[in-house]
Amino acid sequence: MASLALLIPTEKLDRLHIAANLTAAAASMGWSVHLFFTFWGLLALVKGREPSGITGDYMAYESSLKKAVESGVMPRWADLIRQAKQLGDVKIYACSATMNLLSIDRDQLEDFVDDVVGAATFLSIAEKSDVSLVV
Amino acid sequence: MASLALLIPTEKLDRLHIAANLTAAAASMGWSVHLFFTFWGLLALVKGREPSGITGDYMAYESSLKKAVESGVMPRWADLIRQAKQLGDVKIYACSATMNLLSIDRDQLEDFVDDVVGAATFLSIAEKSDVSLVV
Amino acid sequence: MASLALLIPTEKLDRLHIAANLTAAAASMGWSVHLFFTFWGLLALVKGREPSGITGDYMAYESSLKKAVESGVMPRWADLIRQAKQLGDVKIYACSATMNLLSIDRDQLEDFVDDVVGAATFLSIAEKSDVSLVV
Repeated sequence: MASLALLIPTEKLDRLHIAANLTAAAASMGWSVHLFFTFWGLLALVKGREPSGITGDYMAYESSLKKAVESGVMPRWADLIRQAKQLGDVKIYACSATMNLLSIDRDQLEDFVDDVVGAATFLSIAEKSDVSLVV
Repeated sequence: MASLALLIPTEKLDRLHIAANLTAAAASMGWSVHLFFTFWGLLALVKGREPSGITGDYMAYESSLKKAVESGVMPRWADLIRQAKQLGDVKIYACSATMNLLSIDRDQLEDFVDDVVGAATFLSIAEKSDVSLVV
Repeated sequence: MASLALLIPTEKLDRLHIAANLTAAAASMGWSVHLFFTFWGLLALVKGREPSGITGDYMAYESSLKKAVESGVMPRWADLIRQAKQLGDVKIYACSATMNLLSIDRDQLEDFVDDVVGAATFLSIAEKSDVSLVV
Protein backbone atom coordinates (compact mmCIF):
# COMPACT_ATOMS: atom_id res chain seq x y z
CA MET A 1 0.00 0.00 0.00
CA ALA A 2 0.93 3.60 -0.41
CA SER A 3 2.22 5.75 2.41
CA LEU A 4 2.21 9.39 3.50
CA ALA A 5 4.71 11.22 5.73
CA LEU A 6 3.90 14.66 7.11
CA LEU A 7 6.27 17.02 8.90
CA ILE A 8 4.19 19.38 11.06
CA PRO A 9 6.07 22.44 12.37
CA THR A 10 3.00 24.44 13.43
CA GLU A 11 0.30 24.22 16.09
CA LYS A 12 -2.07 26.62 14.37
CA LEU A 13 -5.57 25.20 14.06
CA ASP A 14 -5.91 25.72 10.31
CA ARG A 15 -2.69 23.88 9.50
CA LEU A 16 -3.49 21.08 11.96
CA HIS A 17 -6.81 20.64 10.15
CA ILE A 18 -5.04 20.31 6.80
CA ALA A 19 -2.74 17.67 8.30
CA ALA A 20 -5.66 15.84 9.95
CA ASN A 21 -7.75 15.89 6.77
CA LEU A 22 -4.89 14.46 4.71
CA THR A 23 -4.36 11.82 7.42
CA ALA A 24 -8.04 10.86 7.47
CA ALA A 25 -8.23 10.67 3.67
CA ALA A 26 -5.04 8.60 3.45
CA ALA A 27 -6.11 6.20 6.21
CA SER A 28 -9.51 5.69 4.59
CA MET A 29 -7.67 4.73 1.38
CA GLY A 30 -5.67 2.12 3.29
CA TRP A 31 -2.43 4.11 3.22
CA SER A 32 -0.05 4.06 6.14
CA VAL A 33 0.53 7.52 7.58
CA HIS A 34 3.41 8.91 9.65
CA LEU A 35 3.09 12.30 11.31
CA PHE A 36 6.20 13.96 12.72
CA PHE A 37 5.49 16.95 14.96
CA THR A 38 8.47 19.26 15.33
CA PHE A 39 9.22 22.77 16.63
CA TRP A 40 5.97 24.65 17.38
CA GLY A 41 4.09 21.62 16.10
CA LEU A 42 5.14 19.79 19.24
CA LEU A 43 2.96 22.15 21.29
CA ALA A 44 -0.08 20.61 19.58
CA LEU A 45 0.75 17.29 21.26
CA VAL A 46 0.81 18.61 24.82
CA LYS A 47 -2.05 17.05 26.80
CA GLY A 48 -4.93 19.39 27.61
CA ARG A 49 -3.39 22.34 25.81
CA GLU A 50 -5.78 24.41 23.68
CA PRO A 51 -4.35 25.38 20.25
CA SER A 52 -3.50 29.07 20.28
CA GLY A 53 -5.66 29.95 17.26
CA ILE A 54 -5.19 30.06 13.52
CA THR A 55 -2.38 31.37 11.35
CA GLY A 56 -2.14 35.12 12.04
CA ASP A 57 -2.52 36.02 8.38
CA TYR A 58 -6.05 34.63 8.39
CA MET A 59 -7.25 35.90 11.75
CA ALA A 60 -10.37 37.32 10.04
CA TYR A 61 -11.57 33.74 9.57
CA GLU A 62 -10.75 32.50 13.07
CA SER A 63 -14.24 32.80 14.50
CA SER A 64 -15.87 30.99 11.53
CA LEU A 65 -13.35 28.16 11.82
CA LYS A 66 -13.83 27.85 15.58
CA LYS A 67 -17.61 27.97 15.14
CA ALA A 68 -17.46 25.20 12.52
CA VAL A 69 -15.51 23.05 14.98
CA GLU A 70 -17.68 23.85 17.99
CA SER A 71 -20.92 23.19 16.12
CA GLY A 72 -19.59 19.87 14.89
CA VAL A 73 -19.62 20.85 11.18
CA MET A 74 -15.86 20.25 11.27
CA PRO A 75 -14.45 17.50 13.52
CA ARG A 76 -11.68 18.47 15.93
CA TRP A 77 -8.27 17.76 14.40
CA ALA A 78 -7.22 15.47 17.26
CA ASP A 79 -10.45 13.46 16.91
CA LEU A 80 -9.74 13.02 13.21
CA ILE A 81 -6.30 11.68 14.11
CA ARG A 82 -7.73 9.30 16.73
CA GLN A 83 -10.33 8.00 14.26
CA ALA A 84 -7.69 7.55 11.57
CA LYS A 85 -5.57 5.55 14.05
CA GLN A 86 -8.48 3.17 14.67
CA LEU A 87 -9.03 2.84 10.94
CA GLY A 88 -5.52 1.98 9.87
CA ASP A 89 -1.78 2.26 10.22
CA VAL A 90 -1.28 5.82 11.52
CA LYS A 91 1.75 6.66 13.65
CA ILE A 92 2.35 9.89 15.56
CA TYR A 93 5.89 10.99 16.41
CA ALA A 94 7.16 13.80 18.61
CA CYS A 95 10.53 15.36 17.73
CA SER A 96 13.12 14.58 20.40
CA ALA A 97 15.26 17.68 19.83
CA THR A 98 12.23 19.94 20.22
CA MET A 99 11.26 18.23 23.49
CA ASN A 100 14.65 19.21 24.88
CA LEU A 101 14.41 22.74 23.52
CA LEU A 102 10.93 23.37 24.97
CA SER A 103 11.52 21.28 28.15
CA ILE A 104 8.56 19.00 27.49
CA ASP A 105 8.49 15.50 28.99
CA ARG A 106 7.11 12.31 27.44
CA ASP A 107 4.32 12.09 30.02
CA GLN A 108 3.01 15.54 29.08
CA LEU A 109 2.18 14.29 25.59
CA GLU A 110 -1.25 13.16 24.34
CA ASP A 111 -2.14 9.46 24.54
CA PHE A 112 -2.14 9.16 20.73
CA VAL A 113 1.62 9.83 20.45
CA ASP A 114 3.41 6.60 19.49
CA ASP A 115 7.04 7.52 19.91
CA VAL A 116 9.66 10.23 20.39
CA VAL A 117 12.17 10.22 17.52
CA GLY A 118 14.77 12.39 15.81
CA ALA A 119 15.08 14.00 12.40
CA ALA A 120 17.01 10.99 11.06
CA THR A 121 14.02 8.73 11.74
CA PHE A 122 11.71 11.15 9.95
CA LEU A 123 14.02 11.20 6.92
CA SER A 124 14.20 7.40 6.80
CA ILE A 125 10.40 7.19 6.90
CA ALA A 126 10.00 9.96 4.31
CA GLU A 127 12.44 8.19 1.99
CA LYS A 128 10.19 5.11 1.97
CA SER A 129 6.96 7.12 1.64
CA ASP A 130 5.12 7.76 -1.63
CA VAL A 131 4.21 11.28 -0.57
CA SER A 132 6.15 13.47 1.91
CA LEU A 133 5.00 16.96 2.76
CA VAL A 134 5.61 19.75 5.25
CA VAL A 135 2.18 21.01 6.25
CA MET B 1 7.25 12.93 -18.66
CA ALA B 2 7.75 14.10 -15.13
CA SER B 3 4.97 15.59 -13.03
CA LEU B 4 4.53 18.08 -10.22
CA ALA B 5 1.75 18.28 -7.61
CA LEU B 6 1.35 21.36 -5.43
CA LEU B 7 -0.92 21.75 -2.42
CA ILE B 8 -1.63 25.46 -1.94
CA PRO B 9 -3.15 26.38 1.44
CA THR B 10 -2.51 30.14 1.23
CA GLU B 11 -3.78 33.09 -0.80
CA LYS B 12 -0.88 35.38 0.05
CA LEU B 13 0.68 36.93 -3.02
CA ASP B 14 4.25 35.86 -2.30
CA ARG B 15 3.35 32.20 -1.90
CA LEU B 16 1.07 32.27 -4.96
CA HIS B 17 4.04 33.61 -6.94
CA ILE B 18 6.22 30.74 -5.77
CA ALA B 19 3.53 28.27 -6.84
CA ALA B 20 3.03 30.03 -10.17
CA ASN B 21 6.77 30.20 -10.90
CA LEU B 22 7.19 26.48 -10.21
CA THR B 23 4.17 25.80 -12.43
CA ALA B 24 5.54 27.92 -15.27
CA ALA B 25 8.98 26.31 -15.03
CA ALA B 26 7.53 22.78 -14.90
CA ALA B 27 5.16 23.39 -17.83
CA SER B 28 7.99 24.83 -19.93
CA MET B 29 9.95 21.63 -19.27
CA GLY B 30 7.01 19.56 -20.53
CA TRP B 31 5.98 18.33 -17.08
CA SER B 32 2.35 17.85 -16.18
CA VAL B 33 1.32 19.98 -13.22
CA HIS B 34 -1.54 19.59 -10.76
CA LEU B 35 -2.40 22.43 -8.37
CA PHE B 36 -4.74 21.73 -5.47
CA PHE B 37 -6.01 24.87 -3.72
CA THR B 38 -7.27 24.18 -0.20
CA PHE B 39 -8.26 26.15 2.90
CA TRP B 40 -7.27 29.82 2.53
CA GLY B 41 -5.75 28.93 -0.81
CA LEU B 42 -9.27 28.51 -2.15
CA LEU B 43 -9.85 32.24 -1.71
CA ALA B 44 -7.25 32.83 -4.44
CA LEU B 45 -9.58 31.10 -6.91
CA VAL B 46 -12.60 33.31 -6.28
CA LYS B 47 -13.38 35.33 -9.40
CA GLY B 48 -12.54 39.01 -9.25
CA ARG B 49 -11.16 38.81 -5.72
CA GLU B 50 -7.95 40.74 -5.06
CA PRO B 51 -5.34 38.80 -3.02
CA SER B 52 -5.20 40.25 0.49
CA GLY B 53 -1.47 41.01 0.39
CA ILE B 54 1.71 39.13 1.23
CA THR B 55 2.65 36.94 4.18
CA GLY B 56 2.44 39.15 7.28
CA ASP B 57 6.02 38.37 8.31
CA TYR B 58 7.31 40.10 5.17
CA MET B 59 4.99 43.11 5.10
CA ALA B 60 8.05 45.38 4.73
CA TYR B 61 8.45 44.05 1.19
CA GLU B 62 4.81 44.26 0.18
CA SER B 63 5.05 47.52 -1.72
CA SER B 64 8.13 46.40 -3.72
CA LEU B 65 6.39 43.16 -4.66
CA LYS B 66 3.19 44.92 -5.67
CA LYS B 67 5.21 47.51 -7.62
CA ALA B 68 7.08 44.74 -9.46
CA VAL B 69 3.75 43.21 -10.45
CA GLU B 70 2.09 46.49 -11.42
CA SER B 71 5.06 47.63 -13.52
CA GLY B 72 5.11 44.29 -15.33
CA VAL B 73 8.57 43.27 -14.05
CA MET B 74 6.82 40.30 -12.47
CA PRO B 75 3.82 38.76 -14.22
CA ARG B 76 0.62 38.35 -12.21
CA TRP B 77 0.44 34.86 -10.67
CA ALA B 78 -2.90 34.07 -12.34
CA ASP B 79 -1.51 35.11 -15.74
CA LEU B 80 1.44 32.76 -15.21
CA ILE B 81 -1.03 29.95 -14.50
CA ARG B 82 -3.12 30.76 -17.58
CA GLN B 83 0.01 30.85 -19.79
CA ALA B 84 1.22 27.56 -18.32
CA LYS B 85 -2.17 25.98 -19.09
CA GLN B 86 -1.85 27.01 -22.74
CA LEU B 87 1.68 25.63 -22.84
CA GLY B 88 1.03 22.17 -21.46
CA ASP B 89 -0.82 19.83 -19.17
CA VAL B 90 -1.67 22.02 -16.15
CA LYS B 91 -4.74 21.22 -14.05
CA ILE B 92 -6.24 23.41 -11.32
CA TYR B 93 -8.34 21.86 -8.57
CA ALA B 94 -10.43 23.46 -5.84
CA CYS B 95 -10.85 21.56 -2.57
CA SER B 96 -14.46 20.42 -2.12
CA ALA B 97 -14.40 20.36 1.71
CA THR B 98 -13.14 23.95 1.80
CA MET B 99 -15.89 25.10 -0.57
CA ASN B 100 -18.45 23.81 1.93
CA LEU B 101 -16.60 25.37 4.87
CA LEU B 102 -16.33 28.81 3.25
CA SER B 103 -19.72 28.59 1.45
CA ILE B 104 -18.20 29.15 -1.97
CA ASP B 105 -20.03 27.89 -5.08
CA ARG B 106 -18.53 26.43 -8.25
CA ASP B 107 -19.68 29.41 -10.34
CA GLN B 108 -17.78 31.86 -8.12
CA LEU B 109 -14.49 30.26 -9.15
CA GLU B 110 -12.10 31.54 -11.82
CA ASP B 111 -12.42 30.19 -15.36
CA PHE B 112 -9.07 28.42 -15.11
CA VAL B 113 -10.31 25.99 -12.44
CA ASP B 114 -10.68 22.52 -13.95
CA ASP B 115 -12.45 20.61 -11.22
CA VAL B 116 -13.59 20.46 -7.60
CA VAL B 117 -12.09 17.44 -5.83
CA GLY B 118 -11.37 16.08 -2.36
CA ALA B 119 -8.20 15.28 -0.43
CA ALA B 120 -8.26 11.67 -1.62
CA THR B 121 -7.92 12.83 -5.23
CA PHE B 122 -5.00 15.06 -4.31
CA LEU B 123 -3.26 12.15 -2.57
CA SER B 124 -3.77 9.84 -5.56
CA ILE B 125 -2.29 12.48 -7.86
CA ALA B 126 0.61 13.19 -5.49
CA GLU B 127 1.38 9.47 -5.27
CA LYS B 128 1.91 9.36 -9.04
CA SER B 129 3.86 12.64 -9.16
CA ASP B 130 7.64 12.91 -9.24
CA VAL B 131 7.61 15.99 -7.00
CA SER B 132 4.89 16.87 -4.47
CA LEU B 133 5.11 20.01 -2.37
CA VAL B 134 3.02 22.18 -0.08
CA VAL B 135 3.77 25.77 -1.08
CA MET C 1 22.73 7.01 -1.55
CA ALA C 2 19.53 8.81 -0.77
CA SER C 3 19.03 12.52 -1.38
CA LEU C 4 17.07 15.42 0.04
CA ALA C 5 15.95 18.64 -1.72
CA LEU C 6 14.61 21.56 0.29
CA LEU C 7 12.93 24.68 -1.05
CA ILE C 8 13.35 27.45 1.52
CA PRO C 9 11.10 30.50 0.97
CA THR C 10 11.57 32.03 4.44
CA GLU C 11 14.35 33.71 6.41
CA LYS C 12 12.69 33.28 9.78
CA LEU C 13 14.99 31.73 12.34
CA ASP C 14 12.68 28.89 13.38
CA ARG C 15 12.18 27.69 9.81
CA LEU C 16 15.88 28.03 9.01
CA HIS C 17 16.59 25.81 12.02
CA ILE C 18 14.20 23.16 10.74
CA ALA C 19 15.95 23.25 7.36
CA ALA C 20 19.40 23.16 8.97
CA ASN C 21 18.48 20.28 11.28
CA LEU C 22 17.15 18.21 8.39
CA THR C 23 20.31 19.04 6.44
CA ALA C 24 22.58 18.01 9.32
CA ALA C 25 20.67 14.77 9.90
CA ALA C 26 20.66 13.89 6.19
CA ALA C 27 24.38 14.67 5.75
CA SER C 28 25.27 12.55 8.80
CA MET C 29 23.37 9.66 7.18
CA GLY C 30 25.45 10.07 4.02
CA TRP C 31 22.63 11.59 1.97
CA SER C 32 23.29 14.28 -0.57
CA VAL C 33 21.40 17.48 0.19
CA HIS C 34 20.35 20.38 -2.05
CA LEU C 35 19.00 23.57 -0.54
CA PHE C 36 17.28 26.08 -2.81
CA PHE C 37 16.71 29.49 -1.19
CA THR C 38 13.99 31.50 -2.93
CA PHE C 39 11.93 34.63 -2.28
CA TRP C 40 12.36 35.82 1.33
CA GLY C 41 14.58 32.80 1.90
CA LEU C 42 17.21 34.51 -0.23
CA LEU C 43 17.60 37.19 2.44
CA ALA C 44 19.03 34.50 4.74
CA LEU C 45 21.97 34.14 2.34
CA VAL C 46 22.99 37.80 2.39
CA LYS C 47 26.42 38.14 4.01
CA GLY C 48 26.43 39.65 7.48
CA ARG C 49 22.67 40.09 7.60
CA GLU C 50 21.01 39.14 10.90
CA PRO C 51 17.81 37.06 10.49
CA SER C 52 14.84 39.28 11.32
CA GLY C 53 13.44 36.99 14.03
CA ILE C 54 11.09 34.04 14.15
CA THR C 55 7.72 33.43 12.48
CA GLY C 56 5.35 36.11 13.79
CA ASP C 57 2.81 33.57 15.02
CA TYR C 58 5.31 32.27 17.57
CA MET C 59 6.80 35.55 18.74
CA ALA C 60 6.16 34.48 22.35
CA TYR C 61 8.95 31.95 21.97
CA GLU C 62 11.44 34.23 20.25
CA SER C 63 13.50 35.05 23.31
CA SER C 64 13.81 31.38 24.37
CA LEU C 65 14.92 30.41 20.89
CA LYS C 66 17.45 33.26 20.68
CA LYS C 67 18.72 32.40 24.18
CA ALA C 68 19.16 28.74 23.19
CA VAL C 69 21.25 29.84 20.22
CA GLU C 70 23.29 32.44 22.11
CA SER C 71 24.07 30.03 24.98
CA GLY C 72 25.18 27.38 22.51
CA VAL C 73 22.41 24.89 23.43
CA MET C 74 21.32 25.19 19.81
CA PRO C 75 23.94 25.71 17.09
CA ARG C 76 23.43 28.63 14.69
CA TRP C 77 21.63 27.49 11.55
CA ALA C 78 24.43 28.70 9.25
CA ASP C 79 27.02 26.84 11.33
CA LEU C 80 24.96 23.65 10.98
CA ILE C 81 24.96 24.16 7.22
CA ARG C 82 28.73 24.78 7.13
CA GLN C 83 29.39 21.65 9.23
CA ALA C 84 27.08 19.59 7.03
CA LYS C 85 28.99 20.80 3.96
CA GLN C 86 32.25 19.57 5.46
CA LEU C 87 30.64 16.24 6.30
CA GLY C 88 29.19 15.39 2.93
CA ASP C 89 27.59 16.39 -0.33
CA VAL C 90 25.57 19.50 0.56
CA LYS C 91 24.87 22.14 -2.08
CA ILE C 92 23.39 25.58 -1.49
CA TYR C 93 21.59 27.41 -4.30
CA ALA C 94 20.27 30.96 -4.53
CA CYS C 95 17.24 31.59 -6.75
CA SER C 96 18.21 33.71 -9.76
CA ALA C 97 14.76 35.28 -10.28
CA THR C 98 14.65 36.42 -6.65
CA MET C 99 18.10 38.00 -6.95
CA ASN C 100 16.75 40.17 -9.75
CA LEU C 101 13.58 40.99 -7.84
CA LEU C 102 15.42 42.01 -4.66
CA SER C 103 18.43 43.53 -6.50
CA ILE C 104 20.94 41.30 -4.73
CA ASP C 105 24.30 40.57 -6.36
CA ARG C 106 26.29 37.33 -6.29
CA ASP C 107 29.08 38.92 -4.22
CA GLN C 108 26.64 39.89 -1.45
CA LEU C 109 25.94 36.21 -0.78
CA GLU C 110 27.49 34.06 1.95
CA ASP C 111 30.60 32.04 1.16
CA PHE C 112 28.71 28.76 1.54
CA VAL C 113 26.50 29.45 -1.51
CA ASP C 114 27.49 27.12 -4.36
CA ASP C 115 25.53 28.50 -7.26
CA VAL C 116 22.76 30.77 -8.52
CA VAL C 117 20.10 28.79 -10.38
CA GLY C 118 16.49 28.99 -11.53
CA ALA C 119 13.31 27.11 -10.69
CA ALA C 120 13.87 24.63 -13.52
CA THR C 121 17.13 23.50 -11.90
CA PHE C 122 15.38 23.05 -8.57
CA LEU C 123 12.67 20.94 -10.21
CA SER C 124 15.23 18.74 -11.97
CA ILE C 125 17.04 18.16 -8.68
CA ALA C 126 13.79 17.51 -6.80
CA GLU C 127 12.74 14.99 -9.43
CA LYS C 128 15.86 12.94 -8.73
CA SER C 129 15.63 13.32 -4.94
CA ASP C 130 14.12 10.75 -2.59
CA VAL C 131 12.59 13.43 -0.40
CA SER C 132 11.60 16.95 -1.53
CA LEU C 133 10.08 19.44 0.88
CA VAL C 134 9.23 23.11 1.19
CA VAL C 135 10.33 24.14 4.66
